[in-house]
Amino acid sequence: MLCLCFVLSESYLFVGVSGLYDFGPMGCAMKSNLIQLWRKFFILEEQMLEVEAAMLTPSKVLKASGHVDRFQDYMVEDLKNGECFRADHLIEAHLEKLIADKKTPEDVKEEAKKMMPMIDGMSQNDMKEAIIKYDIKSPVKGNDISEPKEFNLMFSTSIGPTGQHKGFLRPETAQGIFVNFKRLLAFNAGKLPFAGAQIGNAFRNEISPRSGLLRVREFTMAEIEHFCDPNDKSHPKFAGVSDLKLSLYSACNQMDGKPMQSMTIAEAVSSKLVANETLGYFMARIYLFLLKVGINPSKFRFRQHLSNEMAHYACDCWDAELKTSYGWIECVGCADRSCYDLTQHTEATGVKLVADRKLPEPISFYKQIVSGVVRTCTSCVHLFYCLLYRSSRTEHCILSILTSNDILHCMTYRHLYPGDHYLRTIFNIFVISIIAESLTLNDISHRIDDSGGSIGKRYARTDMIAIPYGVTIDFDTLQAKPPTVTLRERDTMKQFISLPASIAPYKCSVLPITNNVEFNDYIKQLSESLTLNDISHRIDDSGGSIGKRYARTDMIAIPYGVTIDFDTLQAKPPTVTLRERDTMKQVRAKMEEIPQIVKDLVDGRRSWDDILKQYPIFEGQESTK
Amino acid sequence: MLCLCFVLSESYLFVGVSGLYDFGPMGCAMKSNLIQLWRKFFILEEQMLEVEAAMLTPSKVLKASGHVDRFQDYMVEDLKNGECFRADHLIEAHLEKLIADKKTPEDVKEEAKKMMPMIDGMSQNDMKEAIIKYDIKSPVKGNDISEPKEFNLMFSTSIGPTGQHKGFLRPETAQGIFVNFKRLLAFNAGKLPFAGAQIGNAFRNEISPRSGLLRVREFTMAEIEHFCDPNDKSHPKFAGVSDLKLSLYSACNQMDGKPMQSMTIAEAVSSKLVANETLGYFMARIYLFLLKVGINPSKFRFRQHLSNEMAHYACDCWDAELKTSYGWIECVGCADRSCYDLTQHTEATGVKLVADRKLPEPISFYKQIVSGVVRTCTSCVHLFYCLLYRSSRTEHCILSILTSNDILHCMTYRHLYPGDHYLRTIFNIFVISIIAESLTLNDISHRIDDSGGSIGKRYARTDMIAIPYGVTIDFDTLQAKPPTVTLRERDTMKQFISLPASIAPYKCSVLPITNNVEFNDYIKQLSESLTLNDISHRIDDSGGSIGKRYARTDMIAIPYGVTIDFDTLQAKPPTVTLRERDTMKQVRAKMEEIPQIVKDLVDGRRSWDDILKQYPIFEGQESTK
Repeated sequence: MLCLCFVLSESYLFVGVSGLYDFGPMGCAMKSNLIQLWRKFFILEEQMLEVEAAMLTPSKVLKASGHVDRFQDYMVEDLKNGECFRADHLIEAHLEKLIADKKTPEDVKEEAKKMMPMIDGMSQNDMKEAIIKYDIKSPVKGNDISEPKEFNLMFSTSIGPTGQHKGFLRPETAQGIFVNFKRLLAFNAGKLPFAGAQIGNAFRNEISPRSGLLRVREFTMAEIEHFCDPNDKSHPKFAGVSDLKLSLYSACNQMDGKPMQSMTIAEAVSSKLVANETLGYFMARIYLFLLKVGINPSKFRFRQHLSNEMAHYACDCWDAELKTSYGWIECVGCADRSCYDLTQHTEATGVKLVADRKLPEPISFYKQIVSGVVRTCTSCVHLFYCLLYRSSRTEHCILSILTSNDILHCMTYRHLYPGDHYLRTIFNIFVISIIAESLTLNDISHRIDDSGGSIGKRYARTDMIAIPYGVTIDFDTLQAKPPTVTLRERDTMKQFISLPASIAPYKCSVLPITNNVEFNDYIKQLSESLTLNDISHRIDDSGGSIGKRYARTDMIAIPYGVTIDFDTLQAKPPTVTLRERDTMKQVRAKMEEIPQIVKDLVDGRRSWDDILKQYPIFEGQESTK
Repeated sequence: MLCLCFVLSESYLFVGVSGLYDFGPMGCAMKSNLIQLWRKFFILEEQMLEVEAAMLTPSKVLKASGHVDRFQDYMVEDLKNGECFRADHLIEAHLEKLIADKKTPEDVKEEAKKMMPMIDGMSQNDMKEAIIKYDIKSPVKGNDISEPKEFNLMFSTSIGPTGQHKGFLRPETAQGIFVNFKRLLAFNAGKLPFAGAQIGNAFRNEISPRSGLLRVREFTMAEIEHFCDPNDKSHPKFAGVSDLKLSLYSACNQMDGKPMQSMTIAEAVSSKLVANETLGYFMARIYLFLLKVGINPSKFRFRQHLSNEMAHYACDCWDAELKTSYGWIECVGCADRSCYDLTQHTEATGVKLVADRKLPEPISFYKQIVSGVVRTCTSCVHLFYCLLYRSSRTEHCILSILTSNDILHCMTYRHLYPGDHYLRTIFNIFVISIIAESLTLNDISHRIDDSGGSIGKRYARTDMIAIPYGVTIDFDTLQAKPPTVTLRERDTMKQFISLPASIAPYKCSVLPITNNVEFNDYIKQLSESLTLNDISHRIDDSGGSIGKRYARTDMIAIPYGVTIDFDTLQAKPPTVTLRERDTMKQVRAKMEEIPQIVKDLVDGRRSWDDILKQYPIFEGQESTK
C-alpha cells in the first residue's frame, strides 16, 4: 500500500519473529496525518463520541463478545516438520494452482472455480473434506498435513501479581465502544442516534503473517459504532450524499459470476441492495474519505458479503476493497450488526445496554400518589413497570418500593443503573413535597430541581443563578426520625477547569440562546465553518437557560463560547457573542469572523485581552424576543 | 492529575481487574491535543526523528536491554489470604505511620526519618531486614507476610501458532528507538547529534495499582532519546534557555535535609550540579512544555536522583515532579544514560550501534593502491583498519579482502552493516578505474558516483541531471570473466510519490541553493515561522545540487519545496521560490507569505492553480552568485 516505503521492516536486529513492523519518521508523520484527518472527517464533522479503552482486556469482556470461543482460524500442521499453515489459504492456493494448470480436466477446473468463493465460509469439516478430496500437502516440502484444528488468534496474558486474572490483547477496537455504551449514551443526554469511535492498536496472532503490511500481528484500526433506533434507520444527512456513484459488487453478482455495477447510493438503498439509509450514508462517507486520502477511484469497489461469509447476526455487510499488487484487499468493513454486541454484553453482565425511547405523550399514571403532590413523571418507563407490578398507589407503597436492597443498589450503581433515576425520583417526590409545603407556608421562595443529574452539577446550576441556600435530601433523610436534611450555602467560587485552550478537549461551544428552530441554520453554518478550520466544538441546543449551559461548558474546560441570539437573526451580516471561560467576559463579533478569532486565541496569535480591545464588550443577552 | 475527570473509570461492566482505564470523549480529545502539542513542541520544533515500534516485543530485545532479568519490584504476600503488596510501599507506609505516631520514641522516629529517602534504592536483603526489624504485617488484616520476592513487571505472551516465540508487552518505549538507531542515523545522513522520539503505550503488571491514573497497568508515554558525541555534550541552542530559572532539588540537599533551590540552568550547568549542557537544555525544554500545558510553576520541581536510586550506567538523572494531592509525583524523567542501551544491543546482536566521527583531515593512506587510480577515501575508518591488518597494498590484496564471506555479508546486510560501504568502496575503486580509463580513451565524458548511497537513489540523481546512460558495476562484474557490467538508459519518468498534501509526512522542504552560511539566518527564520504554523518541514542544507535535493524530497512525497537563493539575500523583503512536487512548476513569493500559502494549499483553501495565477512563475535559479 501507499505507506510501505515509509516502514522500517521487522526489527532487523532481532530477526526471527514475523508480523511485527516499526514505522520510521516518515511513516509516523504520515500515520499521524491520516489519523488527524480521519478524526476531523468522522469524529469532528459528525460530532461522534471518541473513546480510548485499554488494549489489555479482561477475559470476561471477550468471553461475552464471543471472541474467546469463536475468534479463530483453522490451522494445519506439516506432520514431519511441525510448520503451521492456515487451512483456508492452503486450500485457496491449491485450487488456484489447479485452475491455472493446463493439464487439469475441464470438469475439475469448473468445480474448483465454484468452490473458490465458498472458502471464506467453510466449516472445519468442509475444510477437512476439501483437503482429503484434493489430497493437499504441505506447500514447501510436500509432506502430509494434519486435519484442520481450531486456533484462537488472540494473544493471552495474565494480569496481576498472582496471575489471577486472565487477559487478552484486544483483537479489535469495537468492544471498547460497546462496553462504554451506557456512558456514551449519557454523555449524549440519553438521545439516539449517536456514534462512538475509537482509534487504536489491535493484536492478532496470525498463523502465517504475509502480504507486507496487510496481514500483521499488531496494527492500528479506526472504528465507528453508530447506534440508532432499530425501527428507524433513516439518516438525516443521507440527502447530502444520495447522488454519489459507487462501484458495488453485490452478493448475487458474485455468485452469478457477473461484474460489479456502478450506481448512486440512493438507487442502491431504494432498490434494497443496500439495507438502509444509515448503512448507505456510511458507505458514501467511507468512499469520500478514501478519495480524500488519495485512492484511485478506478481501483475501488464495495463488495457485499456472501450469506455464508456474514456473521449470523448481521443484516448486511459491505467491504470497501482496493485493488493492490496483492489483488482486491479489504480496507474498510461496513456492516449493520443489529444489536448483537450490546445484547451479548447485557446477557453477560445483567446491565441493560439499551436506550429509552421518548414517548410521544407523557403517561400520567400516578398523578395522585402523594396527597398534595401533583407531578407527572414523563418517560419513566421503568417506574411504571415498578408501579404496575406492585399495583398499590398509596404513599406507603412508594416508600415500600424503596426496599433496603433497592437503596443499596442505587448507592452502588449510582451513575450506572437506569432504574436509579426513577427510584430516586419517586423517593424525592414524596420528601420534596413535605419540605416544599413547609417552605411555602413560611413564605420562602424556592426552586425544586429534581432533574436527577448529579448533585454536583445541580449545585453548579443553582449557583449560577445565585440561589443563596440549598436544601439537599438524601438517603439519610429517609432513615432519620425526625427526617434531617443538609443545608448548604451557595458556593461563590465559580466552578470551572482552567485548562489552556491548546489542550482543552473542545475549543469552543455553540449555544443558541433558546431551542427556537430559527437558530438551526446559523448553528449549522457556524459548525461547518468551525469544522473546516479544525476547531473542535460542542453544540448544546438543549434549551436550558444560557447560564446553566455556560456552567456546563465551564465544567468541561471549554475555553470559548459562542452564543447565537435574537440579535443574530436581525444583524446583517449576523453577529454573535463570544465568551471567555475564566473571565466570563463577552464580546460581540460577526459570526463569519469567529473561526479565525478562536483559532488565533487557541494558537496564541492573539490574546483574550487583544480581543477585548478590538471588539465591543457585550453585557448580557435576552433569552426571549 | 488534570485529566482525571475526563476518564471513564475501570470498565464498570466487568469489575474486578484493576489498573486499566478507559478515556471518554473529552479525555480522548484532550489526550490528542496533548500529543499534538508535544509533537509540535519537541519533534517538529527540534526536527526529531519519530518512530513507532511494535508494542509486542520479542523476548530477545528485552533480554538484551536487561528488562527480562531486572525489570522487577519486590513483592510480599499475606501468608494467610495470599494478597500481594509491594514491599517498598509497605515499608514506606509503616515508617510514615511510625513517624506520625506520638507514642514513637524520638530516636526510633529519627532513624525512620533517615531511612525514608533510602527506600527507593533498597536491595531485596535490605527490605527483608527492614520488615523483620519493624515487624511489618499485612496492612488490612495484620497477618504475617512472606519475605520479599522478585516479581517481573512485564506482561508476557507467546507469538506464533506453536507458541515458539516468547514475547512481552513493552514496559517502555525507549527500546523501540534504540533498536532502530542505525536506521535513524542513516536517515540523518550519518550525522550526530540527533534525537529519536516515540509516543505510544507501555504496559506494566503493577503489583498493586493505585493513586488513580498514576500507577496503572497500561499507559501512554512520550520518550525522546537524544544521541550525541560522548566527547561533546554541548548544545547549540543552550544559549536560548540559559537564563531560565528552575527549582532544583539536588541529591546533596535531599540527603542533608535542605530545601530545593531556585537557579538558572546556566548556573546549574556551570557549577556542575547538572552534568552537561545537553541535559540542561532538555530540562529547560521540559519545564517550558509543562508551563505551556498549564502546570502551576509553584508546584513544580526537578529532583535529582540519589546515587542509590540511579542506574549504575547513568551519569546524572533529574525527575520533573509535580505536587499533587498524592504528594510530589514524578511526571518526566530526564537522564544522561551514557551509551548503555546501544552497547547492550550491540553485545546481544553483534551489530555495531555506533556513529562515525568525521576526521578533521582526510587520511591519504593508500593513494597508490591500483596503478592509474589516485583516489582519496575520506573518513573510511573501517577500511583503514582492514588495510592495516592485511598490510599489503597490491591489487591482489584488495580483491583478496573481498572473500566470498565478505561478499555474502555485504549482500545479506546491504543496508545495515557499517563495513559494507567501505568494502564496496574498495571494490569499486578497482573496477571503476578500469572502466573510467577505457571511457576516457574513447573520449566519452562521464561522471563517477561512488558515493555509496543506494543504487536507486543514485539513479535518481543522475536522471535529474540528465545523464543519458549509466554503467553499473556489481558483484557479478567481479565474478564474470571477462567482467560484465549493466548498461542502463536514463529513466525519463520522474520518480515521486504523489500523496495528497494533507497526508504527506512533511508538508514542505526548505532548501538553501548552496550550503553558504549566509543562508542560515533565513533558514532559521523560515523554519520557526513554519513551526509556529504547525507545518511539518524538512531542511536539507546538505549542499548537493538543488536538482538532486528536489529529487530526494520528491521521493518522500514532500508536496512543496521552498528554495532560498542569492536573490533572497538581495530582495527586500526577502523572496523565495515555491515548487510543487507533481507539476515541478515554481513561483516566486515573499518569504513571509510562505507559511500561509503552504497552509492554505495543505488545507485545500487554495489550489496550486490559484497560486500559479497569483504569483509570478519562476523559471530556474542560479546556484552561484
